[in-house]
Amino acid sequence: MLDRVRIVLCETTHPGNIGAAARAMLTMGLTRLTLVAPRHFPDPEATARASGADRILEDAQVVPTLRDALDGAHYAVGTAARTRSIPMPQFTPRDGIERVAAEAGRGDVAIVFGTERSGLSNDEADACQALITIPTDPDFSSLNLGSAVQLICYELRMALADTALEPAAPVPLPDLRALESFFDHLEEALFDIRFLVPGQSSTMMTRLRRLVHRATPTLTELDILRGILSRAQLSARGRPD
Amino acid sequence: MLDRVRIVLCETTHPGNIGAAARAMLTMGLTRLTLVAPRHFPDPEATARASGADRILEDAQVVPTLRDALDGAHYAVGTAARTRSIPMPQFTPRDGIERVAAEAGRGDVAIVFGTERSGLSNDEADACQALITIPTDPDFSSLNLGSAVQLICYELRMALADTALEPAAPVPLPDLRALESFFDHLEEALFDIRFLVPGQSSTMMTRLRRLVHRATPTLTELDILRGILSRAQLSARGRPD
Repeated sequence: MLDRVRIVLCETTHPGNIGAAARAMLTMGLTRLTLVAPRHFPDPEATARASGADRILEDAQVVPTLRDALDGAHYAVGTAARTRSIPMPQFTPRDGIERVAAEAGRGDVAIVFGTERSGLSNDEADACQALITIPTDPDFSSLNLGSAVQLICYELRMALADTALEPAAPVPLPDLRALESFFDHLEEALFDIRFLVPGQSSTMMTRLRRLVHRATPTLTELDILRGILSRAQLSARGRPD
Repeated sequence: MLDRVRIVLCETTHPGNIGAAARAMLTMGLTRLTLVAPRHFPDPEATARASGADRILEDAQVVPTLRDALDGAHYAVGTAARTRSIPMPQFTPRDGIERVAAEAGRGDVAIVFGTERSGLSNDEADACQALITIPTDPDFSSLNLGSAVQLICYELRMALADTALEPAAPVPLPDLRALESFFDHLEEALFDIRFLVPGQSSTMMTRLRRLVHRATPTLTELDILRGILSRAQLSARGRPD
């Protein structure tokens, strides 16, 4: 199960934190690290703080965008301190990781961490189906990035102890790229039927993305939805057959 | 409860780890740090790594022996990677902290961490009533001291009965009657755009119902979906405005 979980660090500023994350991962048996546009990497400070977990750093994938980092994964959960104005599923680490563990039984999953100072951006959060919020003291919520990775990986290891291997469900799921392509299609169709008008789409699309993500549609279901969109587009263009 | 828990670090070698521990504690709402014969303290590196949790360092008690550190506490649990030859109660972090939380309801308790390189000595372990072993990968068990403190303090915070995330502002949800009415609308619209044709709707509607139920839409989201359906119906009827 742990082999199907990738840890994604977005735009990490301090290379020491990348090393600390690598060490935190390996102590808990995780090995797949993906770095989105790190400011400094590779870096001697990362290696020093990895404290022997060098192979995690050597095998780390470095990619330019979060979308690249999620390639091939069907489920992504972000970690965030702040609550979002538009509701999306928000888990404690324990409940969130339980869900991640279940999804890892069905395919590749990603856990996404934002940059040190400000955490996940809204766009990064939108790329995830759910958020995990690590409980912190309201008066001092300055959790170190390496510590956050440590907590999450610890919960994964604990979840592994609890859930002996569940057989993978045989239902094919869309990867995140297919979901993004669906959202593009959805937006296009909503313009076609004049539900959306130019200039006001962004909040509405965010709301719809969250609703769809919450449902975690299967590949078949996504095809059905795309079929509906295509028919609506044909209707709107005056060619009902 | 957290005010009755002291974190005890024995003979810490690197002052940076003391700072990291202070930061880890404060993020989880713990404030009582006791240092047994630290090699360097106070130290600028401790302050730097505390990253704002200075008051934990300022208030830290520095004592010469573990016995001094445990003065006034009625329950002490040690953290240890290794199992001991002489059996003593050994907990997972979760079970151990549950016990610590229960004991904190009765008086002061201590959680004891050994030195970086070798962990708790036998004498130090003997001073505790039980041990907590943090699960690590057998091939790489090099858990950072600050990370260990972070995990334990996190479990303490989770153990607080009311730690769960503050309940999000209550979001109005549709009752089942509203959902059924939505499904009627959906089916009607799918006929209008000729996605459904008479006689073959029932399986498809069952699939769509499951998908929507899985998303548990809010009342607002259901209104949005109904808005989309209405626009699609208008388009299909050739009255796009």
